[in-house]
Amino acid sequence: MATRARAAGVRLRPHAKTHQSATLAGWFHDHGARGITVSSTAMAEAFAAHGWTDITIAFPVQPRDLEAIDALARRVQLGVLVDALPAVEALAARDAARLRVWIKVDVGYHRCGVPHDDASGLAALARAIDAAPHLELAGLLTHAGHSYAATGAEAIRAVHRESSARLRAAAGRLHACGFDDLAVSVGDTPTCSIARDFDGIDEIRPGNFVFHDLMQVAIGSCSAADIGVALACPVVGVYPGRGEIVVHGGAVHLGKESLPDADGRPTYGCLIDLAAEGLGALRDECVVTALSQEHGVVRVPPARLRGLRIGDLVAIAPVHACLTCDLHDGYTTFDGTTIERLHGGRWR
Amino acid sequence: MATRARAAGVRLRPHAKTHQSATLAGWFHDHGARGITVSSTAMAEAFAAHGWTDITIAFPVQPRDLEAIDALARRVQLGVLVDALPAVEALAARDAARLRVWIKVDVGYHRCGVPHDDASGLAALARAIDAAPHLELAGLLTHAGHSYAATGAEAIRAVHRESSARLRAAAGRLHACGFDDLAVSVGDTPTCSIARDFDGIDEIRPGNFVFHDLMQVAIGSCSAADIGVALACPVVGVYPGRGEIVVHGGAVHLGKESLPDADGRPTYGCLIDLAAEGLGALRDECVVTALSQEHGVVRVPPARLRGLRIGDLVAIAPVHACLTCDLHDGYTTFDGTTIERLHGGRWR
Repeated sequence: MATRARAAGVRLRPHAKTHQSATLAGWFHDHGARGITVSSTAMAEAFAAHGWTDITIAFPVQPRDLEAIDALARRVQLGVLVDALPAVEALAARDAARLRVWIKVDVGYHRCGVPHDDASGLAALARAIDAAPHLELAGLLTHAGHSYAATGAEAIRAVHRESSARLRAAAGRLHACGFDDLAVSVGDTPTCSIARDFDGIDEIRPGNFVFHDLMQVAIGSCSAADIGVALACPVVGVYPGRGEIVVHGGAVHLGKESLPDADGRPTYGCLIDLAAEGLGALRDECVVTALSQEHGVVRVPPARLRGLRIGDLVAIAPVHACLTCDLHDGYTTFDGTTIERLHGGRWR
Repeated sequence: MATRARAAGVRLRPHAKTHQSATLAGWFHDHGARGITVSSTAMAEAFAAHGWTDITIAFPVQPRDLEAIDALARRVQLGVLVDALPAVEALAARDAARLRVWIKVDVGYHRCGVPHDDASGLAALARAIDAAPHLELAGLLTHAGHSYAATGAEAIRAVHRESSARLRAAAGRLHACGFDDLAVSVGDTPTCSIARDFDGIDEIRPGNFVFHDLMQVAIGSCSAADIGVALACPVVGVYPGRGEIVVHGGAVHLGKESLPDADGRPTYGCLIDLAAEGLGALRDECVVTALSQEHGVVRVPPARLRGLRIGDLVAIAPVHACLTCDLHDGYTTFDGTTIERLHGGRWR
């Protein structure tokens, strides 16, 4: 991703919400990243404590976090997101440290953001930010999360083209009101993985690509060989009559994000080989068909089932790595090293 | 539940996996419970450390846990589950502390367990347990998890009648082989909430009923007024044009368990009123329609939307309380008290 960002002439501000690890964030630093993206104030505090001095909280600012945001802004270059005047007013009312404020733009995902074509809404926000002495209007930021509903490289590129065009047009509207030199920031793994043309974009903020997962494979933003994380689960039951095994790996370990199988039934992961040097082939014929709190039920063809015993370790590739990893406090590499992960990077 | 258990003449061994709190477990102790059920060895260790001396780990025993199980069995009366000879052999091979071993029976859920009608399988397990000096054959245990696929009191009662009959028949098969006085243990919130007849059952192990949730309401094992836990979420965006709010409450806070709406689309919770003295009315017209990692999107009718501001606190009733609570480290009561919850009660 660093190579791709350099080639496209954009700054890479990787999102840390997937890995939530100071060690992994350090790998991005080694590849040139100087800024980082997080999804909560608590996560910003954690990465500030690990030496990051340029942090964007890619989540709408809300009044209950103002004290923590102010304390952070005194220590690091902090960017926050707004999409409504009350949030700007709450920030402006404080006699606080300097903040970079991004206007969150909705380019089609319809989660948060000012609609990209709402010229007066964009202008009102820009003026309110500009009027506050300690607020710096950083630019326009979006998350084209609807790229996750795309399937295949061409569909993802189409989302990217449309999103980028809408964001550039929104910047043009503010330019017409006298706001020049606004930065434009985008970020989602599918478009950042597939697109090559980042014309008019200053910064990308992908996160999931650090591990990828079955959902990324399904939508075509990576291949099965790119999956970089899996859940190791002990086998606790082998049921040849049903063609199933049960593992100690349930909804509290894997999460309940699902992908439909060919018949439209939800699946929650599939086996991936554990080789000596790393993750091996994806076994998409061995699908997790049911999850309860601690149990996972995996459908396994007879030939593979015969080789499995209670106590064996199998690995499950996650549907959504961000959510699966959030259920754990660390990672173990194939050479046995433990890599720490935040706990409390979540909302407190 | 304690009253119901006494009336039915069964022992209540409440499952702690939903609340995972020493304080809440203490409330059960106050109501007469002397034994507790947990779903992992780690959770057993945690409750043993909090003074519980009679613990059943209602999860299949597996070789990787034997050392921890042995250490626990030296401190408390410990019950474990098996459904296959290799697990019994692994237990029998150790020169270890005395263990109560339950045969897990599959009465129709098809997750774990010896099929209820597999007479030779049941007998082989019973003999293997009986032959090991330090293993005590405790009895037959099941979880009729397929009660969650039932809808309405009559359907739940039908599952209960069938499950109980199958379990009693399995006990009869072992009686015919000379194994007398085996205890029979059942446990799932729907049947334990609805059934009145526990003839031939010695012990019930429900857990979810401590809080209930939208799934229990949907299947008819409780009413909306019985829901006892909710996720408090700050509003971070109000979108009258879309008829939606966005809250800081995403998949990492609520979990992705879903219930279908009238059109079959997944919903992840709904608003529940926060009154001064506790949770109020369920607002099932205000449904969580989408969850990303930190964001929740809630559909809200215009009249209610007009009263909401960024920074307000709303409460979301969970679809599956066990999974939502597992994402948090504690509870806050309406008088402001914090109640602790295990972290690490999960598989380590």
